[in-house]
Parts: sequence; C-alpha cells; structure tokens
Amino acid sequence: MSERSKSLDQLGDVVVRGAKWSALAANIKKPKGGVIALDLALLALDAGSTVTAVFTQNAFCAAPVTVAKDTLSRRKKNQRDDAFYCLINAGNANAGTGQLGLDLAQRSCQLLADALGCDAAQVIPFSTGVIGEPLPLAKIEAAATSLVSGLDDRQWVAASRAIMTTDTQPKLFCREFIVDDVTITLAGIAKGAGMIKPNMATMLSYIVTDAKVAQADLDEALTLAVNRSFNRITVDGDTSTNDACLLAATGRAGVTLSRENSSWVAFQEALNDLMIDLATAIIRDAEGASKFITININGGVSSEECLSVGYTVAESPLVKTAFFASDANWGRILAAVGRAGITDFDIDRVKIFLADHCICENGGRAVGYSEEQAMHIMAQTDISVTIDLGRGECVERIWTSDLSLDYVRINADYRT
Amino acid sequence: MSERSKSLDQLGDVVVRGAKWSALAANIKKPKGGVIALDLALLALDAGSTVTAVFTQNAFCAAPVTVAKDTLSRRKKNQRDDAFYCLINAGNANAGTGQLGLDLAQRSCQLLADALGCDAAQVIPFSTGVIGEPLPLAKIEAAATSLVSGLDDRQWVAASRAIMTTDTQPKLFCREFIVDDVTITLAGIAKGAGMIKPNMATMLSYIVTDAKVAQADLDEALTLAVNRSFNRITVDGDTSTNDACLLAATGRAGVTLSRENSSWVAFQEALNDLMIDLATAIIRDAEGASKFITININGGVSSEECLSVGYTVAESPLVKTAFFASDANWGRILAAVGRAGITDFDIDRVKIFLADHCICENGGRAVGYSEEQAMHIMAQTDISVTIDLGRGECVERIWTSDLSLDYVRINADYRT
Repeated sequence: MSERSKSLDQLGDVVVRGAKWSALAANIKKPKGGVIALDLALLALDAGSTVTAVFTQNAFCAAPVTVAKDTLSRRKKNQRDDAFYCLINAGNANAGTGQLGLDLAQRSCQLLADALGCDAAQVIPFSTGVIGEPLPLAKIEAAATSLVSGLDDRQWVAASRAIMTTDTQPKLFCREFIVDDVTITLAGIAKGAGMIKPNMATMLSYIVTDAKVAQADLDEALTLAVNRSFNRITVDGDTSTNDACLLAATGRAGVTLSRENSSWVAFQEALNDLMIDLATAIIRDAEGASKFITININGGVSSEECLSVGYTVAESPLVKTAFFASDANWGRILAAVGRAGITDFDIDRVKIFLADHCICENGGRAVGYSEEQAMHIMAQTDISVTIDLGRGECVERIWTSDLSLDYVRINADYRT
Repeated sequence: MSERSKSLDQLGDVVVRGAKWSALAANIKKPKGGVIALDLALLALDAGSTVTAVFTQNAFCAAPVTVAKDTLSRRKKNQRDDAFYCLINAGNANAGTGQLGLDLAQRSCQLLADALGCDAAQVIPFSTGVIGEPLPLAKIEAAATSLVSGLDDRQWVAASRAIMTTDTQPKLFCREFIVDDVTITLAGIAKGAGMIKPNMATMLSYIVTDAKVAQADLDEALTLAVNRSFNRITVDGDTSTNDACLLAATGRAGVTLSRENSSWVAFQEALNDLMIDLATAIIRDAEGASKFITININGGVSSEECLSVGYTVAESPLVKTAFFASDANWGRILAAVGRAGITDFDIDRVKIFLADHCICENGGRAVGYSEEQAMHIMAQTDISVTIDLGRGECVERIWTSDLSLDYVRINADYRT
C-alpha cells in the first residue's frame, strides 16, 4: 500500500491538507560567503489537529525544549484542539542560556502569537545552532509579520532548507496511501548532521499527516516509529541539547485512523518508512561522512544486547576510521564487539559479514575470507555489516557514518 | 619519601636488582624507511620473585593473554617461586588467531624455555601489534639464543623501545625510596598510543621492584595502583585485546615490605606515582594528540557517577575536536555531562572550570567568563578541566587527549 518516498526534486508541490509553512531569512545564521540563508520557519496546523512530540533526554536541555514540552503537555492535558504553531530558528540553539534563555523562548512565542492574533499557548519554540549565545529576539520580532503573511501550503521545501545548520542537503520525504478511496498524505522534514546519537528523537524533525488520529494513537505511533528510525542512528554518540521530533495529524483528509481499524497498519508502516528515510538521510549527510554504514546485529539474547554491540561498533573511532580508509579491518570490529559489556559471551561464536561475505568466525579470520572481495565491498559508499552473535533470536539494525578527516575539520571549525 | 620519577635520559643506567632485560630486532615489525626496529624483549626475574598481573577485560582477548593468565594462575596456585620470564613481541598481536594462535603462543614459550634451559611454565608470552596475522614463530625461534645471551641488568631503555608500536616515545620511569637505610627501587616501562580505554590495565606495562613482597600484598598493591593510573586514562574508548600490566618483586634488596609494616605506604605511593607517570606518558603520546587534558570531576555522589561523567566528556568526539581547535566550547562539555546518564540531575548546579577560570554555571556561560582568558588557557598544551557536579563529596581524576586530524590519518593508515 505504501510506496517509496519521493525525492526532494519531486516534492516541490507537496501539500498536506491542514498544514502550512512559511520560511524566511532573518539573519540569525551567519552569512556564508555573503550568501544569506533561510533560518526562520513557521508551521501552522489547522484547528482540529492532534500534535505529539518527543524531545532530547539530555539533562542539559535547551530553553525551547523546556518551553515546548511544557506547552504541549498542557495542550494534551486540556484536550485543546485549536490551531497550533511551531516557530523554528536555525543558527542559535538557545541552549546553555539559563533563565534569560527561557524568557526569550517564551517571548518569541508571544511575539508570534501577537502577529497571528492567537494565544501564546498555541505557539511552541524550537531552536538549533550554536550553544550559549542569547537568542536574537529583535530579529525574530522584525520578521514576525512577514513570517505570518508568508504561510502557504506549498512551502515544505523552503521549510526543509530553513532548519538546516551544518547539513549540506535539505531532508524532505513524502508518503501516500489510500483508505476508502481517499489518499492520505504524510510529509516530513528533518535536520541534523552532527551531535547525533539516539536516545529520543535526535535532531529536529516535523511530520504532518492529513489523516485524523486521536491523541493516544498519535503518541503511540510516534514512539514506535522513533524506535525504528531516529533512535537507531548515530554519527558521533553525542546527544544534542535541542533534539525534537514532532508529529501532527490535521484530520483534513476526512478519514479517521485508529489502532482499532484495519488501515492502521498501513499508516504505521508509512510513518515508519518515512521516518527511516529521514533518519538515514541524516546519516548520509553526516558531518564529513564518506560512507553510509548499515549494521545488522543478529542472534542476540535481547534487543538491548544487540543495540549495545551495534553502538559500540558504530561509535568506535578505530572502526570508523577503518571504514573511512576502506580497510576490511575485522579485528577492530571484533575488538569492539568484545568490549560491548555482554556477560557470558563466547566470542568464538561470533560471525561477521561484509555484505554477504563472511570475514570473521571462530575468533579469527574466516576460512573463506578473500581480501580482494572484502576490499571490493569496503570501496563502496554504502556498506552493510552483519554481526551474528550466535546466542539467541533477537535482531536489530542501526545506521552510522565513518570518521573522516572532514569530521574533525568541521568540528574544529564550527564556532570560528 | 618518594621523589619525582626520573626522565628517560636520566635512566640509561637504571638497575633493579634481580631483574634483567634483553631486547633485539627480530624483524617482526615492518621496517619503516628501511630502519629495522627492536621488536622482541625478554624479562628475566630471579628465583624468589613474586609476580602478579592484570589483563584486558575485552571478551575478545588475544592468545598470549589466555596463555599468560593460565600460566600465572597455576604459578600462584602452586606457590612456585622459581625464576620467571616474560617474552614480549611487538608488531604482531597474535589476536583473532583462534586455536592456531594459542598453539603458537605456547610454542613460543617452549622455544624460550629450551634456550633458557627451564620449564615452559616459567615463561609467559605477550604480544602487541596488528590483529589477525599468525605469529611469526620462525623469527622468534631464530632469535631465541641471542635473546637469552643478551640478558643484562642495564637494558631497561632497550626494553622500553622494543615494546613500542605506534608510540613515538619510549616510556620508562623509576622511583626510589629508603627503608631501614636500604634504597628500594621500582622501575617500569609501558607502551600504548591508541585503542586505549581503561577497564583493566589497558596496554602493556612491566614494573619491577627489588623489595620482597608476598603474593597477596603484591596483588593488592597492583589493583590499587591500576585504579589510580591505567584505569583512569582514555584515548579513544577502544579497549585493546592484548592489554596487560605485570608487577614483580624480586626481593633482592633484602627488605621485606608488607601491608602490616609502616613502610607499606611509601611503597604503595611510589608504585601509584610511577604508574601515573607511565599512564599519563601514554596519553601525552596518544595517537595524533596535540593536547594533554586532565579532567577532575568533583562533587559527585559516587565514584561511579564521577567516572561516568569524566569518560563521557573525555570520549565525546565534539569535546575532543574542540580541544584540538583550542576552542573553549563549554556548551559541548555541558552537553556531554548532560548525557552521562546521571539520574535526578540538576544541570544548573554544575560548574565547569578551565584551569581555575569558571566558564560555566547556572546552566549557561559564567558571569565572570572571559573569552580572552579561556582562549589563553585553551592554547596551552596541558589543560586541566574541572567539572563540579554540586551533588556530593566524591572526586575522580582522569586523563585524555584531543581528537586531531592526525588521529584519523594514523588510524586510517595503520594496516597499509
């Protein structure tokens, strides 16, 4: 029922009924080579929309995260379904800004509420960018009226660009499926390229569908999909202070979906697939990345131990530099598996495959190992590694990138 | 009572009574630019020596680790105190080599036992270098007689060079203290530059004293000292497959030290200090390192949470690249503290200092923050960071290095 996500250049006209975006350049991002970039976006959701979100679990969370969580939680508690707005800026994270940061986040919502003619409790803030600088409220104030007047249902591409920071590519995907002869649309955007590690939605992402979905069902759908997508990626193990993933259902397609009816599976699948497209797009665009690496962990006793092995391998600087060098260094992978903290672990039962070529078994190089074949696989841009733990029935899959010279260059230069 | 360790160039003549070393070039390391390096060493300990060691906790441990643990454990169980030998090669780790690796490790001990005219149970093997290649036994066999005839009590410097792999500097330190008018000497060597993460002794290190120390006391002294030194360093979070730290007491100074007598404190302090010198020398020589970073974690509820914060900060690629860039990016440090998994954590109570300059408090930049002063501190080679968690009385200290372009270059080139 669901089809492959469309790529960005096919998405210029994407519309999700009940959702409008506006995006403009408010001079919050530093101009690069004299070019001024989009850096302020507004998402408007029609009255009747349900909204849910997950946020960073970093104890050091940014001011907008605190404000948005608080406002959303009161909206859910009071079962409000009036129109709802997300104000997003890139270039300044409003994190590490103490009480002043909270005040500025709240005042930015009030500014937009005034321009929109609504209550401040209908606007939530999101910020991404440099940590520790005060939010430039005057720039948001100067842009507020234009931002509101620019709201349009065909602005998804502009919004996907406005939320970018070190991203080199905007990330926008769309899925459709049909229920009772009605086409249901989901569209989503995401940003993120570094400081990426699952533990909640780990970047900014906004997904909207025009189906009608009750609050509890929407919450459940997002939790499930996040654990298949954004909570299965890592660039550098660093969890950001500002991460958020928001899912809204406008209901404007006139079809109600719920866990009670048969179309739910199609919706959950389309959502999972869309969010995997967004999450893997983040990995493909990871800071300095030259490889896209899929790690399958099979044969674990539990999901936890599969993930522990997967992340230990994915975040090992030695494994990551071996991928950067296209070096089939199975010893580094096996050494990372060995330190993943699994108890009663017989490392001799572990098998490691590059694509479908077994490179490691019985605690050493596989009998059928071919250096030529391994080198050929490692030279690809997309590489799949399968680690069979030989202990149980659990499987997991995560995605990561390599550690390149450019990763260090980008992150040694970021503030300057 | 104990004095500063002497540096390498003062140590050409160091002698620990009852211990001899031999070192030669057996062509196990690949020649670099036509230069053949020392790569095989033998440590001989007189009869009457007590010996203890700690090994890697990586489930994927190398063949020599398995053999050495087994032999040492039988020696302790049978209370043997005949002469004892450590055979160490660099250039080949004999790890990931399965049953063949175990056979070769045992056969290398037998070869040396034959040349020495002793029992194979008196020789234990150590290897460091490339993973997954068979140990070149023929080269060891060819060198065995020369290795034995070269044993000499003034070969510590040669031994410290022979165990190096990607190290750029040999690591040798010596301490002396006086008990009952007798000078007690401790000398130690270590190697290690990458794949370094505490969880046991995390590299190769050999320390010998000429005091007489009973087995149980020696075991206890090593455990304590390792937890102050080698178990408090990290380069890249990668725990090696071959790590070992051996401590021997030859008794040839004619003085018995035990936990029961008053000189024990001086011995334990000298051992701790010597091992901290060795451990920090590893960090100073870390692969590609341009900075030596001391992280103090104060005000924790437990040692565990201090260490969890310390390692999360020390291993964060974003923090490490900020140090490489000499960028006082306190936001990255605070973000790493925030994801260290501490429960009920009020991040606003955290204070972060560069040297003694407070850069972060109340969840944001410190009121007295001076960019100029912070930049000045970050420009140094030796940088101390203090993170006060504001929760309790526990303190910990760990040492780490930065993540540089050279770290990536070195590890992307290692096998080629």
